[in-house]
Amino acid sequence: MNTLEQFSSTQKSLIEEELISAIKSLETPAKLKESMLYSVKAGGKRIRPLLLLAVIKTFGQDTKKGLKTAAALEMIHTYSLIHDDLPSMDDDDLRRGLPTNHKVFGEAVAILSGDALLTKSFELVVDSPIADQSKVKIIAMLANAAGAEGMVGGQMADIEGENASLSLEQLESVHRRKTGRLLEFAAAAGGVISGLNEDELKKLRMYAEHIGLAFQIRDDILDVEGNEEEIGKPVGSDESRQKSTYPSILGMEKAKEKLAFHLTQARKILRDLHQEPALLVDLADLIAKRKN
Amino acid sequence: MNTLEQFSSTQKSLIEEELISAIKSLETPAKLKESMLYSVKAGGKRIRPLLLLAVIKTFGQDTKKGLKTAAALEMIHTYSLIHDDLPSMDDDDLRRGLPTNHKVFGEAVAILSGDALLTKSFELVVDSPIADQSKVKIIAMLANAAGAEGMVGGQMADIEGENASLSLEQLESVHRRKTGRLLEFAAAAGGVISGLNEDELKKLRMYAEHIGLAFQIRDDILDVEGNEEEIGKPVGSDESRQKSTYPSILGMEKAKEKLAFHLTQARKILRDLHQEPALLVDLADLIAKRKN
Repeated sequence: MNTLEQFSSTQKSLIEEELISAIKSLETPAKLKESMLYSVKAGGKRIRPLLLLAVIKTFGQDTKKGLKTAAALEMIHTYSLIHDDLPSMDDDDLRRGLPTNHKVFGEAVAILSGDALLTKSFELVVDSPIADQSKVKIIAMLANAAGAEGMVGGQMADIEGENASLSLEQLESVHRRKTGRLLEFAAAAGGVISGLNEDELKKLRMYAEHIGLAFQIRDDILDVEGNEEEIGKPVGSDESRQKSTYPSILGMEKAKEKLAFHLTQARKILRDLHQEPALLVDLADLIAKRKN
Repeated sequence: MNTLEQFSSTQKSLIEEELISAIKSLETPAKLKESMLYSVKAGGKRIRPLLLLAVIKTFGQDTKKGLKTAAALEMIHTYSLIHDDLPSMDDDDLRRGLPTNHKVFGEAVAILSGDALLTKSFELVVDSPIADQSKVKIIAMLANAAGAEGMVGGQMADIEGENASLSLEQLESVHRRKTGRLLEFAAAAGGVISGLNEDELKKLRMYAEHIGLAFQIRDDILDVEGNEEEIGKPVGSDESRQKSTYPSILGMEKAKEKLAFHLTQARKILRDLHQEPALLVDLADLIAKRKN
């Protein structure tokens, strides 16, 4: 196992325990809880919370300080998947090889589960073992990254861009919001918890921006070249929806070059930020080379 | 004009300015912003934010300190109306006499607008001119009141209770969550901003609990006896959906007695809490006697 694999196997279980216990302890109708747990347990790579914790680990702090914020971030990611999959949005029946939340629980419960996960995430940050000043900073960053100026705005732009021919700039702007901002949050929140200064936080955000773009390019490539069983949804779904993607705009070869470029940039920034950035280098590699 | 009318006419404009400017300044796709503004501008009595500010005023503090938190609360109330009106939930075409958000902007945009309003509300609390410690406390209270253990849980229970015959206890439990918790938040947040102690906060919550129940009983009565133009939606919609209500469970006369009881209790608590509670007494009266 490389450095990241060792780190991930421990931290993923802790993140999942935190997520599950936060939901199980809620006093709320059983069906709502069941639906929240269903999507939170549906797995996934937990890349966002792992990134947050990897930053804390890299800067020599106790990852426990970031566990609740990491779980909060994964809750927001999960809520966004539940809402994005709804019939009026992307209308997806499968997510990670399993029926989507509304296919199992119905649309009303799926909408409410998403709302509840989003709301709970802010309570989790408040419950973190960090100073009030850091909590306030992280909550402001999280709301901004997840909201109208971040992820929700990106989803809106994505819906508007469906069936339209986007330029590379437009495509990149959608992805910066839809995927990029939460990854930036992950890195910067890890930095805040580690007590880093503004210059270091800026570098962490730049690193995250590059791996965010790499993440999305890889996603678009997998939709063409991926293995249906591994990615857990049908191959070619972007094309059948006439969605603009990196391969559709740049061609496959240039898309792969661009992926490699962002990976190189991410590594450069890391070398400038820290003497032993192995964990964060591995994470960038994982994103660029993942099979699902 | 009575004390509350004078106070409301000033504060309502300030709340609405705060709401509108917070949304207008967002860098987000125009359609999302338009949809958020549509519902926020659709009016309403602004009872929740007025309650928050009325507590601050009663305790002699500057209401400006609570304006952003008041706007945050109204954003959460607005998001809940947008999501509750969706076809998969209550499937309402009219709200306050206007077409509901999804009727104008479509379901996808309505869902995203709700998500964006909910998320933005936490940023507004962070931007408040109050101490970090108070912000953290208010954010925890707001997330709890709005989430799975509060309003969202209440909406879930409400959906499950539709077409079912509820006992008075079950009905009250739904309302305590669906309406009560946000009113309790309003009162308690005003108390936190005013620097009150735990005992005073407890009394404020009890006062809010009573006016919350009064609010809901009045709502149920208006659905039977109200004027369609004044309430902005068809009279008798609860009955046509076979919803359990206070008049359907208790009969109209007992429902009105119960409304009067909660109003009396609210006044009692206020006399115990403050020497000059006129503003909060008027607010309780407004809730119990409103025509829409």
